[in-house]
Amino acid sequence: MPVDERPVGVFDSGLGGLTAVRELRRLLPGEEIVYFGDTGRVPYGSRSPETIVKYARQDVAFLREFDLKAIVIACGTVSTTALEVLAEENSLPVLGVVAPAARAAARRTRSGRIGLIGTQASIRSGAYERYIRQERPDAQVFAQACPLFVPLVENGRTRPGDVVIETVAAEYLAPLRDSRVDTLVLGCTHYPLLEAVIRSIMGPQVDLISAGAEGARAVAELLRARDALAPRQSRGGCRYFVSDQVQDFSRLASLFLGWDVTGEVGQVDIDRY
Amino acid sequence: MPVDERPVGVFDSGLGGLTAVRELRRLLPGEEIVYFGDTGRVPYGSRSPETIVKYARQDVAFLREFDLKAIVIACGTVSTTALEVLAEENSLPVLGVVAPAARAAARRTRSGRIGLIGTQASIRSGAYERYIRQERPDAQVFAQACPLFVPLVENGRTRPGDVVIETVAAEYLAPLRDSRVDTLVLGCTHYPLLEAVIRSIMGPQVDLISAGAEGARAVAELLRARDALAPRQSRGGCRYFVSDQVQDFSRLASLFLGWDVTGEVGQVDIDRY
Repeated sequence: MPVDERPVGVFDSGLGGLTAVRELRRLLPGEEIVYFGDTGRVPYGSRSPETIVKYARQDVAFLREFDLKAIVIACGTVSTTALEVLAEENSLPVLGVVAPAARAAARRTRSGRIGLIGTQASIRSGAYERYIRQERPDAQVFAQACPLFVPLVENGRTRPGDVVIETVAAEYLAPLRDSRVDTLVLGCTHYPLLEAVIRSIMGPQVDLISAGAEGARAVAELLRARDALAPRQSRGGCRYFVSDQVQDFSRLASLFLGWDVTGEVGQVDIDRY
Repeated sequence: MPVDERPVGVFDSGLGGLTAVRELRRLLPGEEIVYFGDTGRVPYGSRSPETIVKYARQDVAFLREFDLKAIVIACGTVSTTALEVLAEENSLPVLGVVAPAARAAARRTRSGRIGLIGTQASIRSGAYERYIRQERPDAQVFAQACPLFVPLVENGRTRPGDVVIETVAAEYLAPLRDSRVDTLVLGCTHYPLLEAVIRSIMGPQVDLISAGAEGARAVAELLRARDALAPRQSRGGCRYFVSDQVQDFSRLASLFLGWDVTGEVGQVDIDRY
């Protein structure tokens, strides 16, 4: 069976994409991953499409210094806003999180009423709705931007019982709950850290779909279909690069990964790309 | 009397510096101001010193394309972290907000117990404390980083009665209130928008000092002392430049300025500097 030893590149505006790395490591522990987090310019979600495209091009240009077999955009904002440009400009497969999450939502909803939460840029783009309707034209999508979720997660305010995250989440989610959605797309890779809070507001009957995890599953399927998995005996691993200080990254990354970052984390001057 | 028609350059990581512009326009309505807000890379306050210095150098390089008579760093984070480097590298006067705010606090405190709030980078730098102790060696400074204040302000959560800002502010400010400070330095130019919330927690007897307004006063004094004010009959005005989309800036800027942005706002590709 043919194999492909080259690594998979994964990038995000910051740390959120590590929720995709976590799933990818679980599904395909033999793969080598090169992760880039643009911690020097995070967050992307409140910025304009032009700026997001520019930053995403630089992120890809850095990753392409490695000989990769595929790139995963583990960022809802970049996936909704820059995927088409990036896929067009690059000869290797570039996968986002939007299409996989939209497909999962379309497949899993029973009522056809799907909720969607994401950054301002993601919601403004309308990309999730377009992909959902491709799969299921009669779906009704109820979308809500949640601009404070990323800063709250990055400040560790993720725990049920914290009046700050609970108040903000209740405000954002009330219209979706009132719309009686049966499926909710967590359209930003930071949001799985809020799963308990979101679940307590939406109720146990609502199916939560993590964009990062669905993106990881999509790349696993692609590599399998192309006979491009790593050799069976390979140990796999992950190299991390960030655009701001590495210490801050190492400290926070374990929250997203569920394990400590071991080995080296490199710093990248991303402006140069 | 000698005059100097050249504009004053003012910059910030984003919109907060407009609270300094507001004061400068009030004190010296005849001056021309060139404002740069790095909205494409805001916030600076959670980043490393190296990244802040790099971004600040680029901000100054852009402003220096204009023939300026002085530059005001209307950003607590840059003032605490990069002022010395910038002042050394530039032949024109570069003023920050730290020394003026520290002087005002040292002068106005009665008990010598001074509270200080700012971004993580500002607090970590220790710069406010150093300047306060230069003026008043016996002062006791109680410092508290408030990392969620900037995102909350930028999301419009500034009003008394909002449980989110009140909970976060009460957590951050409780140690300062318990320390019975009589003066509180608002060490970030975003914080004046939270004045009502902060005052309700700290009580009416605590003197609040706005770093942005003190910085504006310092540049007014400097220009007067150097006979470098604009000619008496000049009408003054402000040109605005940002690194992200101009529409978003124009919409939010009036919150900080207290008036609408009229005239043009330009976009700058700040990476090129």
